[in-house]
Amino acid sequence: MKQSQLFTKTRREAPKDEVSKNAQLLIRAGFIHKEMAGAYSFLPLGLRTMNKIAGIIREEMNAIGGQEVHLTALQDKKNWEATNRWDDSIVDIWFKTKLKNGGEVGLSFTHEEPLTAIMKNYIQSFRDLPKAVYQFQTKFRNEERAKSGIMRAREFLMKDLYSFNADEKAHEEFYERAKQAYIRIFDRVGLGGQTYVTFASGGSFSRYSHEFQTITDAGEDVIYVHEGKKIAVNKEVLNDEVLKNIGIPRSELVEKKAVEVGNIFSLGTKFSDALGLNFTDAEGKPHPVIMGCYGIGPGRVMGTIAEIRSDEKGLIWPETVAPFAVHLIALPDKDGAVKKAADDLYERLTKKGVEALYDDREATAGEKFSDSDLIGIPTRYVVSAKTLADDSVEVKDRLTGKIEMRKIATI
Amino acid sequence: MKQSQLFTKTRREAPKDEVSKNAQLLIRAGFIHKEMAGAYSFLPLGLRTMNKIAGIIREEMNAIGGQEVHLTALQDKKNWEATNRWDDSIVDIWFKTKLKNGGEVGLSFTHEEPLTAIMKNYIQSFRDLPKAVYQFQTKFRNEERAKSGIMRAREFLMKDLYSFNADEKAHEEFYERAKQAYIRIFDRVGLGGQTYVTFASGGSFSRYSHEFQTITDAGEDVIYVHEGKKIAVNKEVLNDEVLKNIGIPRSELVEKKAVEVGNIFSLGTKFSDALGLNFTDAEGKPHPVIMGCYGIGPGRVMGTIAEIRSDEKGLIWPETVAPFAVHLIALPDKDGAVKKAADDLYERLTKKGVEALYDDREATAGEKFSDSDLIGIPTRYVVSAKTLADDSVEVKDRLTGKIEMRKIATI
Repeated sequence: MKQSQLFTKTRREAPKDEVSKNAQLLIRAGFIHKEMAGAYSFLPLGLRTMNKIAGIIREEMNAIGGQEVHLTALQDKKNWEATNRWDDSIVDIWFKTKLKNGGEVGLSFTHEEPLTAIMKNYIQSFRDLPKAVYQFQTKFRNEERAKSGIMRAREFLMKDLYSFNADEKAHEEFYERAKQAYIRIFDRVGLGGQTYVTFASGGSFSRYSHEFQTITDAGEDVIYVHEGKKIAVNKEVLNDEVLKNIGIPRSELVEKKAVEVGNIFSLGTKFSDALGLNFTDAEGKPHPVIMGCYGIGPGRVMGTIAEIRSDEKGLIWPETVAPFAVHLIALPDKDGAVKKAADDLYERLTKKGVEALYDDREATAGEKFSDSDLIGIPTRYVVSAKTLADDSVEVKDRLTGKIEMRKIATI
Repeated sequence: MKQSQLFTKTRREAPKDEVSKNAQLLIRAGFIHKEMAGAYSFLPLGLRTMNKIAGIIREEMNAIGGQEVHLTALQDKKNWEATNRWDDSIVDIWFKTKLKNGGEVGLSFTHEEPLTAIMKNYIQSFRDLPKAVYQFQTKFRNEERAKSGIMRAREFLMKDLYSFNADEKAHEEFYERAKQAYIRIFDRVGLGGQTYVTFASGGSFSRYSHEFQTITDAGEDVIYVHEGKKIAVNKEVLNDEVLKNIGIPRSELVEKKAVEVGNIFSLGTKFSDALGLNFTDAEGKPHPVIMGCYGIGPGRVMGTIAEIRSDEKGLIWPETVAPFAVHLIALPDKDGAVKKAADDLYERLTKKGVEALYDDREATAGEKFSDSDLIGIPTRYVVSAKTLADDSVEVKDRLTGKIEMRKIATI
């Protein structure tokens, strides 16, 4: 894309009320717009990165047999009364609104209830199991405070997968496959090194759930990390019994601040019991379906990457989720030769399928470089009179700062 | 995809409270689920078709220079008070809800206000124009009645494009390009033959807007059609002056029921005046930006296709939007030879990139055929002991019913 066409521009300052580093950087670079506290719109660069993150998650969900759906945001209270999660005194983050023709509806903060109700139409026998169903859908959560930018929003995109199995053994096998898929996802989006599979509260259904916690001072959680084993324990469950279960002495754990970028949870039969999702076995006997849920917020992942992979100049995207692979910059020249060479290179890159943002604007070299550093595309190609004198392009790696010259004909 | 894995099944009956043909068929075929009146979830087959429709729209929006964004559903009242569209006595379809820490927020029923406010950050000079920005985002409309299935929902996906130009001439040129893009979209999704560019009320900004109206008895609008010129006039604006303007005598118009599948609208400076979206010209003089808006609901398009392209047996998808290109059906056999040949063919189709739904279930030929007719994939390949005796596959066109035999090796 030509940068002269892109409607966003970089900004020197984020809005004064924005206190989080991730949102400040993303707003200044033109990735997002702050609509109000906890609600951010995604602009072209930001949507491209969101779609790359979602694309990686989708591939991994499809690879473990997930089938994609898209449920409604508006929620009928009948499903939530069945599980006792409608009342505001029990779930305190509901947004609710009223239908004009009468009756209150909620805005989905999660989707266990409606999906369990849907599956009653399709699961009757053991032959209909196992199944795994997922979606990317907006969640609405009426948070008291929203000061972490896109890491904790009141409206945000979530990938939520739900599994349906006939017995515990099959559930546990799927749960482990989902855990491995999550590990691959965080590796692929560039957070693998800092992300720990973390033992957390299992609620009433199972001993533990697993959170995927990424180490960052911007996180709101405290976890205890074992670096060698690459696992951690959430502070909320750390006690002697847990330490014994996971076989790690307290002395080997290090306290860290972290953000929960994903979680996987065994639901047991809580929802299938409440909503009547049963199957009959080979002998015709009915049983409730065993369920699990598996969540990742692509926006929170993007915010976490912005927190961790950034420096005083701006963002530093991993290749896999960068809005463009290459930032091609034509420096100002007198006779138009640089512009022509850069135009040709842009056309060649585009034909080869390389996603390039081409800074063809009339601006100074300084403006172009500082914008490029702020936007954070991983590889920069600079074309100038000087590089052309050697039939070359200057190639700079945003992360390492390493610069090399490459013959333009070889690109 | 193997049909034995697909979690949905066809159903004999839609819910009793569902009165629209489109939703009845789509529910029975497993494309959608009715969450409540006017709110439908999209299941795997339905989401695939929605994504195909959205993909066609996206291509055409990109081709006219549209840049994709994703704005929030939650709406801050300040932008809407500026245009006098916050008050429920003026806009009677708002869903509103409350933030826990105080203050009312709305759920977006359209996005002129927030996008105009965003563009103030990026449009200052004539050099920043023209721009065109679009999104696919959920709209919420608190409709009194919702009886048309996915053709008029309370929660629905909308593609809305907004244009920003420096003067009327540039606006009109873009408006015409958008109109042509819309004509291509309706052609590509298979509604071209029944869809008319329709003169409609222009509101206070311009003489007319244009609706894209598709002829169907399920529509809620009445239009007057000139079949030869392929244009129409909405009943709400039909008068002598309009007839004179478009140069068509009343006697040549035929009254039809129709559904508005898209609309394009000149907004003039209504929103830029109210929200202060101005640019300076080459002489440094300020002017308000000229805007236009351009909407299509992919769900309504899908519902309209279901209304128009269906028969007593079920749905009949155009190839461009079908959830799969081919429905491969293996009929029951005794020695497993049919299963093996169908498995091989499925693998070959998949390798070639042909999207096939493969009915590998243990079911009777009658069940498989009636499910296939209901789901409505355009091309059906049937493998049976009989077809294999001739090394062939029976190929049936869902629309015409035409059957031919093709050598299996040539597929």
